[in-house]
Amino acid sequence: MTSPADPADTGTCADTSLLAPGWAGSPAAAATGDRAYLRALLDAEAALTRAQAALGLAPAEAADAVGAAAADPDAFDARSVAERARGGGNPVIPLVADLTRAVGEPYAPYVHRGATSQDILDTAAMLVAARTLDLLLPDLARTERALAGLAAEHRDTPMPGRTLTQHAVPTAFGLKAAGWRSLVLDARDRITAVRDALPVQLGGAAGTLAAFEAYGATDPVGLVAEYARELGLRAPLLPWHALRTPVADLAGALAFAAGALGKIAVDVLTLARTEIGEVAEGSGGGSSAMPHKANPVRSTLIAAAARRAPQLAATLYGSLAAEDERPAGAWHAEWEPLRDLLRLTGGAARDAAELAEGLRVRPDVMRAHLGLTHGLIVSERLSAELAPVLGRARAKELLTELAARAYAEDRSLGELLAGVPELRDLDLAGLTDPARYPGAAAALTDRALERR
Amino acid sequence: MTSPADPADTGTCADTSLLAPGWAGSPAAAATGDRAYLRALLDAEAALTRAQAALGLAPAEAADAVGAAAADPDAFDARSVAERARGGGNPVIPLVADLTRAVGEPYAPYVHRGATSQDILDTAAMLVAARTLDLLLPDLARTERALAGLAAEHRDTPMPGRTLTQHAVPTAFGLKAAGWRSLVLDARDRITAVRDALPVQLGGAAGTLAAFEAYGATDPVGLVAEYARELGLRAPLLPWHALRTPVADLAGALAFAAGALGKIAVDVLTLARTEIGEVAEGSGGGSSAMPHKANPVRSTLIAAAARRAPQLAATLYGSLAAEDERPAGAWHAEWEPLRDLLRLTGGAARDAAELAEGLRVRPDVMRAHLGLTHGLIVSERLSAELAPVLGRARAKELLTELAARAYAEDRSLGELLAGVPELRDLDLAGLTDPARYPGAAAALTDRALERR
Amino acid sequence: MTSPADPADTGTCADTSLLAPGWAGSPAAAATGDRAYLRALLDAEAALTRAQAALGLAPAEAADAVGAAAADPDAFDARSVAERARGGGNPVIPLVADLTRAVGEPYAPYVHRGATSQDILDTAAMLVAARTLDLLLPDLARTERALAGLAAEHRDTPMPGRTLTQHAVPTAFGLKAAGWRSLVLDARDRITAVRDALPVQLGGAAGTLAAFEAYGATDPVGLVAEYARELGLRAPLLPWHALRTPVADLAGALAFAAGALGKIAVDVLTLARTEIGEVAEGSGGGSSAMPHKANPVRSTLIAAAARRAPQLAATLYGSLAAEDERPAGAWHAEWEPLRDLLRLTGGAARDAAELAEGLRVRPDVMRAHLGLTHGLIVSERLSAELAPVLGRARAKELLTELAARAYAEDRSLGELLAGVPELRDLDLAGLTDPARYPGAAAALTDRALERR
Amino acid sequence: MTSPADPADTGTCADTSLLAPGWAGSPAAAATGDRAYLRALLDAEAALTRAQAALGLAPAEAADAVGAAAADPDAFDARSVAERARGGGNPVIPLVADLTRAVGEPYAPYVHRGATSQDILDTAAMLVAARTLDLLLPDLARTERALAGLAAEHRDTPMPGRTLTQHAVPTAFGLKAAGWRSLVLDARDRITAVRDALPVQLGGAAGTLAAFEAYGATDPVGLVAEYARELGLRAPLLPWHALRTPVADLAGALAFAAGALGKIAVDVLTLARTEIGEVAEGSGGGSSAMPHKANPVRSTLIAAAARRAPQLAATLYGSLAAEDERPAGAWHAEWEPLRDLLRLTGGAARDAAELAEGLRVRPDVMRAHLGLTHGLIVSERLSAELAPVLGRARAKELLTELAARAYAEDRSLGELLAGVPELRDLDLAGLTDPARYPGAAAALTDRALERR
Repeated sequence: MTSPADPADTGTCADTSLLAPGWAGSPAAAATGDRAYLRALLDAEAALTRAQAALGLAPAEAADAVGAAAADPDAFDARSVAERARGGGNPVIPLVADLTRAVGEPYAPYVHRGATSQDILDTAAMLVAARTLDLLLPDLARTERALAGLAAEHRDTPMPGRTLTQHAVPTAFGLKAAGWRSLVLDARDRITAVRDALPVQLGGAAGTLAAFEAYGATDPVGLVAEYARELGLRAPLLPWHALRTPVADLAGALAFAAGALGKIAVDVLTLARTEIGEVAEGSGGGSSAMPHKANPVRSTLIAAAARRAPQLAATLYGSLAAEDERPAGAWHAEWEPLRDLLRLTGGAARDAAELAEGLRVRPDVMRAHLGLTHGLIVSERLSAELAPVLGRARAKELLTELAARAYAEDRSLGELLAGVPELRDLDLAGLTDPARYPGAAAALTDRALERR
Repeated sequence: MTSPADPADTGTCADTSLLAPGWAGSPAAAATGDRAYLRALLDAEAALTRAQAALGLAPAEAADAVGAAAADPDAFDARSVAERARGGGNPVIPLVADLTRAVGEPYAPYVHRGATSQDILDTAAMLVAARTLDLLLPDLARTERALAGLAAEHRDTPMPGRTLTQHAVPTAFGLKAAGWRSLVLDARDRITAVRDALPVQLGGAAGTLAAFEAYGATDPVGLVAEYARELGLRAPLLPWHALRTPVADLAGALAFAAGALGKIAVDVLTLARTEIGEVAEGSGGGSSAMPHKANPVRSTLIAAAARRAPQLAATLYGSLAAEDERPAGAWHAEWEPLRDLLRLTGGAARDAAELAEGLRVRPDVMRAHLGLTHGLIVSERLSAELAPVLGRARAKELLTELAARAYAEDRSLGELLAGVPELRDLDLAGLTDPARYPGAAAALTDRALERR
Repeated sequence: MTSPADPADTGTCADTSLLAPGWAGSPAAAATGDRAYLRALLDAEAALTRAQAALGLAPAEAADAVGAAAADPDAFDARSVAERARGGGNPVIPLVADLTRAVGEPYAPYVHRGATSQDILDTAAMLVAARTLDLLLPDLARTERALAGLAAEHRDTPMPGRTLTQHAVPTAFGLKAAGWRSLVLDARDRITAVRDALPVQLGGAAGTLAAFEAYGATDPVGLVAEYARELGLRAPLLPWHALRTPVADLAGALAFAAGALGKIAVDVLTLARTEIGEVAEGSGGGSSAMPHKANPVRSTLIAAAARRAPQLAATLYGSLAAEDERPAGAWHAEWEPLRDLLRLTGGAARDAAELAEGLRVRPDVMRAHLGLTHGLIVSERLSAELAPVLGRARAKELLTELAARAYAEDRSLGELLAGVPELRDLDLAGLTDPARYPGAAAALTDRALERR
Repeated sequence: MTSPADPADTGTCADTSLLAPGWAGSPAAAATGDRAYLRALLDAEAALTRAQAALGLAPAEAADAVGAAAADPDAFDARSVAERARGGGNPVIPLVADLTRAVGEPYAPYVHRGATSQDILDTAAMLVAARTLDLLLPDLARTERALAGLAAEHRDTPMPGRTLTQHAVPTAFGLKAAGWRSLVLDARDRITAVRDALPVQLGGAAGTLAAFEAYGATDPVGLVAEYARELGLRAPLLPWHALRTPVADLAGALAFAAGALGKIAVDVLTLARTEIGEVAEGSGGGSSAMPHKANPVRSTLIAAAARRAPQLAATLYGSLAAEDERPAGAWHAEWEPLRDLLRLTGGAARDAAELAEGLRVRPDVMRAHLGLTHGLIVSERLSAELAPVLGRARAKELLTELAARAYAEDRSLGELLAGVPELRDLDLAGLTDPARYPGAAAALTDRALERR
C-alpha cells in the first residue's frame, strides 16, 4: 500500500511543524515561518525605496506606494512565489514581480531599484534572525533566572559528583545549577554580540553599488547607511554577498546556545532516570498505556535540538568558502539551515525556560545516593587524611583492602575504619560523611552567581 | 524596525517551501509534506487494526471503522496535532486521541491497540520514504537515460581534461557523461536496495510485543508480518526502536545520491562559466537587470543540496548511538533531517533530470579550448614519443624549453617541434593534435554504457 | 609561560596516538599509520610495473628491480616525503622521485610509467582500507559471538525496558543483547560488501589511460585488470578519479559500524551507572585517588568514536561533489578523514570485542529493579486484562488511582489490586509479576539468533 | 596481495604527516604534535606543583624536583604512554606514573597532588591551543598585509564581477582583495578574542576543588589563580570539566578562519583556471609528465582544509552536551578534532600567507574578459540610462533585442547601440565601456583598507 503520493498532498498548507514538537508553537516558530520571511522580504523592499526617497533618489510618494503595497504579507501568495522561485533560483525574483504589479504605475519603477535579489534575501534573513533572537533572549533570561534561584537554594545540597557514569566525590546541586547558568550566560553573551552586529545587505549586482549610481546616487555608501537605519540593522563595511561573516557568526552562536542548553538537558535526563530520580521535570509527558511514566519531555526535545545544531552550523561554516561575487550553491545552501538553527535553538530556549522553572529537586534522594558506594565516595579524602597518620603506602593499601571489604561485607567504610586502632584519634564520622566533603562547591557557586 | 514578530505570523499556513527552490513543487515536496506524513501516520494506524482483524484480534468492523476514519488526512487538524505534540514529545499521541474520537464507540478501543507511538511514527516515516523514493527513482532513470544519450552522442567529442583546475590531457565529453551516468547508476542501486528493505515498525512499549499478547495475540511475530503485508513494507527481524539501521541506510543512500548529482552539478557549473562555455543549461535562469545572464540554476540548486546532505546524514548516523529501548533525543533528532534529506535529494533528482535532458553541449568550444595551452596539452604524449628518438633526458629538456617558448612566442608546440631536425620523421601533426590523443576514452565509454 | 613552541618539537617522531586511547596499539593503528600508507604506496608502484611487465610493456627485470626497491618502506624517509609533498600537494610526487632514484638505471624509466599521482594514492588508500577492514572484521566477529552467547544465556533474564529514561515495561537482557548483535551483523554485512568491492585506481593524467597507450599498451583496460589482479582488488568499470563511490561507500559503512557499536556503548554506559549497576565492564579503568571507581572505559572510548564518525563521513560524502577530472581540494580533503574513520572504527571494534567478551551481567540487580515502580511496570498489561472485567473506563480510572496510591503509600500495585473485590478471580500474583510479562522477548531472541 | 598488515608497521614512528601536505612542516604541525602535547602536559604538572609551593602547600624543593623531571618531554616515552592510556582512557594516568617515578622520593607525593586527569589534559590542550594560535596569528597578519597591498595596488583594476558563474557587472580586483582581507581580519579578531580567553582547568575529581582542601589549601580558588598565573592562561570562573565553552569557542573561531581562508582559495582556484588565468599562484605545483601545468597547490590545500574544518567543529560543538561532572565519551571525542582543527587552520594560514604574498595578478587578462559578453556586462547600466531617453518598456525591449543580436552577429553592444538614432546624444562609448562602470568599488576599497 505504498501507492504513489496522493496528488492532493500538494494542498495549500504544507508544513505546520508536525515533525517538530521542539519548536512547534514557539515564538521562534512564528518568527521564522514562511510568512515571517515574506514579511521581512517586503520590509526590506519597502525600506530600500524609503532610503532612496530619503536621499532624494525617489519621490516620497514612491516610498509610500511601495510601503503600502508591502505592508501586508498576506496580500502575496507565498506558495506561488515559492514555486516560481525555481526559475531564477530564489524567491525574490517572483516576489519583486508581484510587488511591482501591486505597486502599479507610476511608482512601479522604484520597486527593487538598483538592487539584486541577494540584497533583499540576505537583509530579510538578518531581519528574521534579529526578530527571532529578540524572542529567544528573553527565554534565555528566564532560564538563567530560574537556574540562579536553584543554585542559591541548593548551594549546600550535597549530591554525588559523577564522572564517566560513576560516583566520584560529592558535589552540590547548587554548583551544578550554577554551572548550567554559566553556560546560559555564555550563550546569552554570544548571541547578544552577534545580534547587535547583524547587518543589512546592499551591494547591487556584484557588490559595487554601481546600479545605484546609475540611478543617480552620488553617495551609494550613504544609501547603505540610510537603508540600515530604516531597518534597525547595522551598515556593513562592505557588501557581504560572498563574505559570509554574519551567517557564520550566527551559526556559531546558535550552535553554542543549543549545545549549552543540551548540557542541561542531558544532565536532567540522567538525574531523572527511574533509578536515580534526583530531579524531575515539572510536568512530565505521560503515556496513555503506562500511567506511571513521567517522561522528561522538555529535556528530550532540547537534547534532540543539541544533536542537530552542530551539523546545521557546519553547513553554514562550509558556505564561507563561496566563490566569485555570488556563489552558485553555497549561498542557496544557507537558507534553510539558518532558519532551522534559529527555530531549533529558539524552541530549545523555550523548553529550557520551562524546564528550569519547573524542575523539581529531591535533596533527600541525592543525600541517600551519597551512601551508595559504602562511603567510598570520600575515599579521595581519606587517602589524603590517612597518609600523614599511616604513611602513604600503608594508607593506600588499607583503603584498597577496606574498599573491597566494604562491598563484600555490605558495610560502610566508616564502620570498617573505626576498627583500625591507629585511626582512633581521627574524627572518622566527620571524615567519612559525604555531606561534609563539599570542597569549594559553595564558594564557587557564590562566585558564579555574582556574574550578571 | 526589527519589531517583535507579528502575532499573525502564527497563521494557518506555515511553510510552503519559500526558502527551498530546490524542492518546491517537486514530487518529493508533495510526498514529504506534513499532509503526507499525516496520511502515512493514519495509514499505519489503519493497517494495524486491519492486521489485527486479519488475525482475529479485532472485529472486521473495527478495521473498517478505523480505516474509514483514517482515510482522509484533511479530516484532521495537522497544526493542532503539531502543537499538542509538545506534551508527550511526539505527534502520535494527539493524533491517536483525535482518531479515537473520530472512530467513536464501539470500535474506539481498537485504535492503536497494543502499539506505542514509535511504532506508528517509524512506520509512517518508512512509508513516506518509500513513497518519496518511488518518485525519486524515475527522475534518476530520466537522468541516466539522458546522460547515456549524451555519452553515446559525444563518445568521440574531444575536450580538455582538467585536473586541479588546469588543462591536463585531452578527454572526451562522452567519457565525462558516462562517468556522470555511472554515479547516477550507483545512486540508483543504493537507493533501490534501501527502498526494498524498508521495514514496518512494531514492537509495543519496549519492543517485546507484550501488549499484543495481553490483547490476545498468540503469535505476535505473525502480527508484525501481517502489518507489513498490509503496508507493502518488510517485516523486520526485530523491533528496531533503538536499532536504527533503516534510518542510517536511508541517510547513506540519500547522501550518496545527493553527492553523485552534485558531481554533475559542479562540472556543469564549471563548464558553463562565461569564459568556458562548453556547456549550457537548457534554460538558464534570467536576471531582470542583466539580460545577457543565463544562470545555471538547475546546477546551482543541485550543488546546494549536495552541500547540505552530508551533514543531515551525519545527524542520522549520529542517532545510531541510541540508548535504552527508546532514546531521549536521538530518535526525535531524526524526524526533520530524514524528511529534509528526502526532499533535498528528491528535488535534486528532478533538477538533474531537467539538467541532463536540456544540456546544450558545444563541441566546437571544447575543440577550441584544446588549443589554449599552445599544444602543451599533449606534452605527456610527446614525452613518451620523443624519448625513444632523443633519449629521455634530451626529450625532457627539449620539451621544457619549447614549452616556455610556446608561451613566450605565442606559437604552438607543434610548430616549434617542426623546427627540430631529429624529429623530422615523426608525424608531428598527428602527435600534437589533441583530438588524436583520446586514449581509451571511447572504449571506456562503450564499456560504461553496457552497464544497465 | 605559553612561550612559542619548542623548535625541537619537529623531532623525528611526530604522532604516536597520544590523544587516541581509542585506537592506540590496535590492529587498525598499525594498519593505518604512515608506514602502512608508505608500504601501500610502494606496493601500488611495484604492482603497476609488474602488471606492465605481464603485458609485455616492460621487461621482467624492470618489474623485479622496482619490486625490490619498493619492498621495504623503511628504506624511505616518510617525513621527508611528507614535507616535500607540499610542492605538488601530494606525497606520491616526492616518493616517486625517491623510488626512481632507488631503482636506478636502467629500469628507472619504468617507475610510475604512465600513471598519475592519484592512481597510486587512491590505490594505496584502497589497499590500506582492505587491510584494515580485514583486521576489523574479526573483531566484529568476536563481538558478535560474545553477544550471541549473552543473548542465549540471558534469553529469559527479565529486566526493565526503558524508554525516554523511564521504566516502561519489562524486557529481557537476552533480547537487548540480540539487538546489539543484530547491529553488529548489519555492520559486518555493510563492511564486507564494501570491502569486497574495493577497486584499484588507474587512469593516467585525466582518466583516459592515454599515456599507457603512448607507452605501447594496446589494451589499456586489460592493464587495469592485471594491475587489480596483482593487488587483489577489483578492477573498476571506469577510472574513478572524480567518481568517488568507493570512498563514499567506505564512509557509509564505517560510520554505520561506529554508530552500531556506539549503541552498545551507550547502553552499557547507562546500565553500568552507579545507581543502576545491571552490567559492568570486565575490567574497569581505575582511578588512583578513588579506589572504588571502575570506569566503563571501553564503552567510553567506543562512544567517543561514535560521536566523531558521522562528521568524518560527512566530509567524505561532501567530496563526492568533485569538479573536473581531478578536483582541487575535494580529493585532498578525503585522505585524513578516511584514515581517521578506519582507525576509529577499527579501534572501536577492538574495544567492542573486549567489552562484549568481558561484560558482567547481574540478573539479580535487573530483577530487583523491576520492582522500582511499585509494580507499575506492568500497568500496560493490567490495562488490557482489567478492561474485560471492569470495563475500559473503570479499569483505567482504577489503575490511575492505584498508581498514585502505590507511590504515596509505598505499596505494590499487586497488593492494592488484591483489595479490589471484582478482581478476586484473577491471578493477580501472576499478572503483576514483571518477570511474567516478557512478551515475545524470548521468541524474538531465538529468531534473531538464527541469523548468521 | 592485500595481505594482513605488516607487524613491523607498529614501528616507532607512527605518523609524520604523510597524508597532510596542508600542514606538514608548518609551525602548527610542530606546535600540535604528540611531543608538543607531552610537553604541555608536563608543563601543566610542573605548574601545578609550583602553584602549590607558592601557596605553601608544597615545599619549594618539590616544585623544583617536579619542574626538573618535567622539563624534557623526550625523557618520556610517548608511545608507551599512549598505549597504557587505554587502561583508564586517557594519557595523563600513565604519564603521571612515569613522572612520579622520575621525581622519586621524597617529592613524588607532590606530583599531580589533588588533581584529576582532566585538569591536566584540558590545561595542556589550552596551552597547545595558545601556542599554536600564537604562531597562526602572524600568518594571518602576513596574509592581511599582502592582501592590503593587492587591494591598494588594484584599487582601480577592472575585472568581471561574477555571480552564479556568469559575468554580471564589472568590479575591481582591489575590491575583491579588500573583501578577502576583511575576512582575514574577521578571522584574526575572532581568534584573538578566543586566544586571550583561554583558561586553565583545575577542579579536582568532580570540580569542587575538594582534594586541594584535603591537602591543606584554605583558598583553593586562589590556587586556581596562581596556577593560571604560572601558565599565562586565564583563571576560569568555574571548573569547566563539563562546561565546554573554551573548546566550543575554539571550534567556532577556527572553523571561521578556515572558511575565511577557503573563500580566498576558491576564488583563486576559479581565477587561475586555464581558461580564465586572471591570477596565478606564485609558484605552481608542477607535474613531471605535463610541463605546462602550474597547479594552484596552495589554494587547493587551503580549500581542502576549509572542507574539513566545519565538520570537525561540529563534533566539538556536539560535545557541549556533556552529561555529569565528566562525560563518558563527549570529552574524549574532543581531543583529536581540536588538534586537527588547530593544525588544519594553522597550515591553511601558512599557505594563505604564501598565496597572498606570491599571487600574480594579470590586469590585462581581466580587462580582456570584460569584453567577453559583447558589452552586455554593462547592460544593467544601459537599462538605467536608456529608460529616461526611450521609456522603460522600449529600453528593455531594445536591450533584449540587441543582446540577442550581439551574440548572433558577434558584434558589440556599443556598436549596435550606435545604430539607434534616438541614442545619438548619449556618450555611448563611455556608457558601454566596462572599465567605466566601477560603481563604488574604489571608495569601498578605501573604506575597507582603513580598518586595522
